Amino acid sequence: MSWGILAGQGLLPLEVGEGMKREGIEPFVLCLGENAAQFREAGFNVGEAQLGQLGSVRRLLIEHRVDQMVMIGRVGKENLLAGAVDQELLGLFAQLAKKNDDTLQLAIVNYFEEHGIRIETQTRFLKHLIPDRGVLTGPAISPEEKADLELGFRMAKAIGRLDIGQSVVVKKGMVLAIEAVEGTDQTILRGGQYGGSGVVVVKVAKPQQDFRFDVPAIGLNTLQALITVKARILGVEAGATFILDREKFLAEAEAHGITVVALDEVGA
Amino acid sequence: MSWGILAGQGLLPLEVGEGMKREGIEPFVLCLGENAAQFREAGFNVGEAQLGQLGSVRRLLIEHRVDQMVMIGRVGKENLLAGAVDQELLGLFAQLAKKNDDTLQLAIVNYFEEHGIRIETQTRFLKHLIPDRGVLTGPAISPEEKADLELGFRMAKAIGRLDIGQSVVVKKGMVLAIEAVEGTDQTILRGGQYGGSGVVVVKVAKPQQDFRFDVPAIGLNTLQALITVKARILGVEAGATFILDREKFLAEAEAHGITVVALDEVGA
Repeated sequence: MSWGILAGQGLLPLEVGEGMKREGIEPFVLCLGENAAQFREAGFNVGEAQLGQLGSVRRLLIEHRVDQMVMIGRVGKENLLAGAVDQELLGLFAQLAKKNDDTLQLAIVNYFEEHGIRIETQTRFLKHLIPDRGVLTGPAISPEEKADLELGFRMAKAIGRLDIGQSVVVKKGMVLAIEAVEGTDQTILRGGQYGGSGVVVVKVAKPQQDFRFDVPAIGLNTLQALITVKARILGVEAGATFILDREKFLAEAEAHGITVVALDEVGA
Repeated sequence: MSWGILAGQGLLPLEVGEGMKREGIEPFVLCLGENAAQFREAGFNVGEAQLGQLGSVRRLLIEHRVDQMVMIGRVGKENLLAGAVDQELLGLFAQLAKKNDDTLQLAIVNYFEEHGIRIETQTRFLKHLIPDRGVLTGPAISPEEKADLELGFRMAKAIGRLDIGQSVVVKKGMVLAIEAVEGTDQTILRGGQYGGSGVVVVKVAKPQQDFRFDVPAIGLNTLQALITVKARILGVEAGATFILDREKFLAEAEAHGITVVALDEVGA
C-alpha cells in the first residue's frame, strides 16, 4: 500500500503531507498547482501534472504504486477550461447529466477508484484542524444565544440538505441571512447589515457531504467578516469543519470577544 | 351579518372595499392609517382608530355590528411601540412566547374571533389580483427555463416551510439567492449580481401561510428589480399571490421581455 496526495493550491495539501509523515508515511505528492518547490523543500517525493491531463495523472500515480490517496487543495476550474483537457477527462465529463462542482469531483473520485486508487477523506490526516464538540474560545454563551445556535444549526442543516448552502446568520430567533452562491463571508456581511452587532453565525456540513473532496472550512477571511459585523458567536460543526490557521484564528476571535463553538445535532 | 374592513395603509384596503361593493356589501371601514378621507370620498361608512387602542377598535366594530371582517393594509409596528398601546393589547402580547410578526398578527386575529368577529381571508374580495395557473405575459418558456421554474418552486416552498423566506433566484439548475429578512427585491438584485442576466425568480406562499393576515404580494418595485438585473422569468404561486397594479405590471413586464407565470405544485 502506497499513499499519494493529489495536491491543489492552498495551505491544506502540505498539512496533509505533514500529517502523513507524523504517521510514518512517505507519500508520493502529485502537484497540480505551483507548489512543487514547496513540497520538495519539505523533503517529499514530488511529481508535477495538470488535472486536465487526467490520463497522465493516472499513469504517474500508478507508476509510483499509489493505491490510496488524498485529493486536496483548490484546482481552478479555469485550468480545466483552458484547453489543456485530454480525451480521458473529456470522456468523463461527457457522461455527466449535471456539471456542477460536486458531480465533476465525484466523477474524478470514481475514476481513480475504478483504476484501483482508493480516495481517502480529506479529514483523515487533518484531525488537528477539526474541532471536537464544545466551546473553543471566547465568552460564555447565554441561554438566548444557545437557542440561536440551535436554530442556526437546524436551519443550516436544512439548507444543506437542499444543497443550497451551508451558512446561516441568526439573531433573537430570526433567520437574517441564508447562504447560496455568494459564499459564507458575504452571507455574514449581509446578516450583520440587517441584524446589527451581536449576530450568531452557523456553518455546517451538508448531510450528504462527501468528505473525499469537500469539507467545510473556515479561515481568517471569514473571521474578518465576523469582526466587521461585530458578530457574537461562530458555530461550526464538530468533527466536520477545518479551522485553517487554527491557533491564530482562535486567538483573534477571543481578542474580539467572538465565541467559537463546535456543535453537533445534540448541541454545543 | 355585517362586514367590516380593518384598513391599514396601501392600495389594498380600498380594493377590498370596492370588491365588497361589487357584491352588494356596504362595509364599515375602520381606518388605522391616514386613509379615512380616501374612503369617505369613495362613499364608505368610515371610522377612525389606532390598532394600539385595541379595546376602542373592538368597541367601534361591535357598535357597527361587524361580525365578519377583512384585516388588510400595512400597520406600522412603530405605531404599536409609540406608547399608544392600551391594556387590552398589552395583555394580548404579554401572553406570547415569541413576538414575531406572525404571532402578533395571529393573536389579534384570535382576539377578534373570540369577540365574535370572524376574520375573512385577504383574498376573498381580491380575486382579480390573484392569477390562475398559466403564463400571464411574455415570451414562451424553454425546457431549461421550465426546469429552473420547477426547481425554484420546490426550493421556495422548502424555504417557506422553514419559515425563512418566500423567494429564490435560480439559473441553469443553480440556486443563486435565497430570501431571508432582506426581502424579495434585494434577493432578486443579489441573484442577478451572481447570475448575470436571464435569471428565473420564484415567489410562493409558505405552506403554513395564514391568508387572514398575510398573502404574498408583488408590485412595481419588484418588477423594477427584475428589470434592473435583466431577469428572464418571474414565477408566482397560482391562487396565492397578489399582483398589485396588475395591468400595468404585466404590460411593463412584457415590454421588457419578462415572462410572468403562475405556478402550482403541478407546474406552470
